Amino acid sequence: VDQASGEKLITELRRVVGDNHVLSESELRARYERDWTGRFVGQCQAVVRPANTDEVAQVVSILNNLGVAAVAQGGNTGLVGGGVPRGGEVVVTLERLTEIASLDKRSRQVTVGAGATLQSLQSHLQGSGLAFGVDHGARSAATIGGMVATNAGGIHALRYGTMRFAVAGLEAVFSDGTVMSRMSGLVKDNAGYDLPQMIVGSEGTLALVTKARLRLVKDLPERATALFAVDDTQSAVELLMLLRDEVPSLEAAEVFYKDGLELVSSYLGMHKPFAGDHPAYVLVECAASYDPTEELAQAADGANTRDVAVAVDAVRRNELWSYRESHTEAINAQGIPHKLDVSVAVSAMPEFEAQVRELIAEAAPQALCILFGHLGDGNYHVNILGLEPDDETVDRRVCELVAYCEGSISAEHGIGIAKRDLLSLTRTEQEIEAMRKIKAALDPNNILNPGVIF
Amino acid sequence: VDQASGEKLITELRRVVGDNHVLSESELRARYERDWTGRFVGQCQAVVRPANTDEVAQVVSILNNLGVAAVAQGGNTGLVGGGVPRGGEVVVTLERLTEIASLDKRSRQVTVGAGATLQSLQSHLQGSGLAFGVDHGARSAATIGGMVATNAGGIHALRYGTMRFAVAGLEAVFSDGTVMSRMSGLVKDNAGYDLPQMIVGSEGTLALVTKARLRLVKDLPERATALFAVDDTQSAVELLMLLRDEVPSLEAAEVFYKDGLELVSSYLGMHKPFAGDHPAYVLVECAASYDPTEELAQAADGANTRDVAVAVDAVRRNELWSYRESHTEAINAQGIPHKLDVSVAVSAMPEFEAQVRELIAEAAPQALCILFGHLGDGNYHVNILGLEPDDETVDRRVCELVAYCEGSISAEHGIGIAKRDLLSLTRTEQEIEAMRKIKAALDPNNILNPGVIF
Repeated sequence: VDQASGEKLITELRRVVGDNHVLSESELRARYERDWTGRFVGQCQAVVRPANTDEVAQVVSILNNLGVAAVAQGGNTGLVGGGVPRGGEVVVTLERLTEIASLDKRSRQVTVGAGATLQSLQSHLQGSGLAFGVDHGARSAATIGGMVATNAGGIHALRYGTMRFAVAGLEAVFSDGTVMSRMSGLVKDNAGYDLPQMIVGSEGTLALVTKARLRLVKDLPERATALFAVDDTQSAVELLMLLRDEVPSLEAAEVFYKDGLELVSSYLGMHKPFAGDHPAYVLVECAASYDPTEELAQAADGANTRDVAVAVDAVRRNELWSYRESHTEAINAQGIPHKLDVSVAVSAMPEFEAQVRELIAEAAPQALCILFGHLGDGNYHVNILGLEPDDETVDRRVCELVAYCEGSISAEHGIGIAKRDLLSLTRTEQEIEAMRKIKAALDPNNILNPGVIF
Repeated sequence: VDQASGEKLITELRRVVGDNHVLSESELRARYERDWTGRFVGQCQAVVRPANTDEVAQVVSILNNLGVAAVAQGGNTGLVGGGVPRGGEVVVTLERLTEIASLDKRSRQVTVGAGATLQSLQSHLQGSGLAFGVDHGARSAATIGGMVATNAGGIHALRYGTMRFAVAGLEAVFSDGTVMSRMSGLVKDNAGYDLPQMIVGSEGTLALVTKARLRLVKDLPERATALFAVDDTQSAVELLMLLRDEVPSLEAAEVFYKDGLELVSSYLGMHKPFAGDHPAYVLVECAASYDPTEELAQAADGANTRDVAVAVDAVRRNELWSYRESHTEAINAQGIPHKLDVSVAVSAMPEFEAQVRELIAEAAPQALCILFGHLGDGNYHVNILGLEPDDETVDRRVCELVAYCEGSISAEHGIGIAKRDLLSLTRTEQEIEAMRKIKAALDPNNILNPGVIF
């Protein structure tokens, strides 16, 4: 970037958002230029922090006119490099759009700014009798805008679906700076193409999400958490099927294994949940308006499990959850892992698990492979420690296995820049071409997160 | 169309689907050229009946190469003229793609051909313990492909959402004849733009749907139906809110009025449901794995209603439903109505109802306005009898009122050709431009249902 045009850009952006909200010095930019795992780092021209939708629109319009690329950033909790710069872009952080408003108990909807964190939404809803159906471990930092842009999934998808199903309305800024505002939250609205649904999951490449109208669910105050020890993945799947049929209060079903539990317990300095070790673990959450313990206990009686721990009080429930939710942190503490986020049909999980372990043991005998994930969605997080940071050979082979199992190479994290070269494993040339055409149609100057997805 | 090129087209199509499945004679084409209300009629060059996806792809490819437009047709139950020709197109009927396969109880999904009717899917699922969440009155003729293409809503949307939420996978043919097959039915699959979701609701303008992988729900065998007589729409809305909070088994909540009931009872030759007349009626369906009568009765006790009839046996339940579901037939028997399918926020229904009646009484004092619809979704079907068939003045004024109430001018029927000129009432110029760009990107020769939506 030549200096004169760079200065012109900064001046124009400052005119819109104010001097303090255009960060051009490197130490101020730093935290926006690097993802939290440390795997993706890039330098941007500036970080701009608009205060509202109108400022976002003006910023995007300036960037579009000057042909400067925009990287939208939410809570920077992404895992595929889709929210940090690659080099030379302007980072548009939505972090100041934190307003949560218009909680409507009659329609069971709420309007949330793109920059509000999931946790702040959860706090806002406390005591209202309503709750938000999508939840995941990064709740304290992940923002609603980022969750919309990546169609976040998380731990309750088996009951409430992914982010896509929670979006009743959307406000977003297109590449030319025009604002689409579809916020009335109608249950039925078939007037032309559903642009909001097109934007959900498009990873900042079609529009910048500024606000979402979200569907809420009934808050279910009675909860029970159970940790089951089981023989293997096949037993885990059978347990899931049983619970799905017989436990209407089932809200989450997660899976992890002996090696992951070992790592987490030692990282957290916690006792392991059972006296002995077991090959695999299923963590189950039930929620209802009645006490779900009985239906859970009854179903558990009929299940082929090795051991079980049930918790109803919050402290003990959190403890059981921490075995599962601390996996990512505990793994990151060991080094920078290669992270793959894949899904297969639930019934294909046992075979996939066996084959992926075999593949990694063969391709990288020195590597440590930790598997965990969302049993209810067939969603495995494959974490591999001990690989060269830039050697993608093993990643590709794992994704080829996924494709062979008719699965997805990105279940919930998106494609970003990390999985770009793998997209063709599960999408045909014609599908990718159709996506490219949509991208070119809506962002002809290719300024919205260029290099992401394609 | 000149004769030589017309003959060439017929020959090429016959080579793909066989002589018997290209209908070029006018008496054979007739039933495909006219919608069932008789409002939309147009002449096509031919009707082609491919037997499978491969034949659909070849047909579309031929049409694209020759620049001949294709009108996809399912059960021809549409109400906005989106499935019948305007003049000179080829109708591609999906009626032979009726296969229902791969019912997977573990994933709770089934694969359904575009031409299978909703009723045939319902029959197929009988006894399986699973059911399909979307249902509507046209079930005997409406096809799954058509329901996908129009994002059908219907009577259970308040519990299970619209068609969009039931689509776990899609197979479709793009304008150049390439097939997109995304049928693995993964719960989480964030690899690039969600093309299936873009196609849902696009009314045959972006691709021809050939197959869908559908999410199923648990079949709930215990049912209760109640018909409430209430004072007015405000009381109906309050009743809905009460039921939504206190009756977890609530599956449908419909509304109709005194004049509609009068018409239906006389059309069916049935007694009216109560001894006296009442201003408004709410029809409620409950479904659960337990007997829902008690929770319904308890909630009804606390409601401000004028009368109530409850039914649990199938015969009596069907009778109560027929008061609601025969509205369309009973109205059509009076003449060709102007039909508007609109939605507003549920809380805005009372004001909308009052204003729309006032508007029609003032604008067309000779007209008869029958309102009914899906209370749970804020979805009114506004039927106006006694207007000139081609005079759209009143339709436009009703839709202007909808726009003023921040509603949708097409809740579930789509835009078709009937509502094309009204689209700009609730979509901005920029939104429509974005839709046009997507259309042009995916169908550059404009052969897929041209004239529909735009």
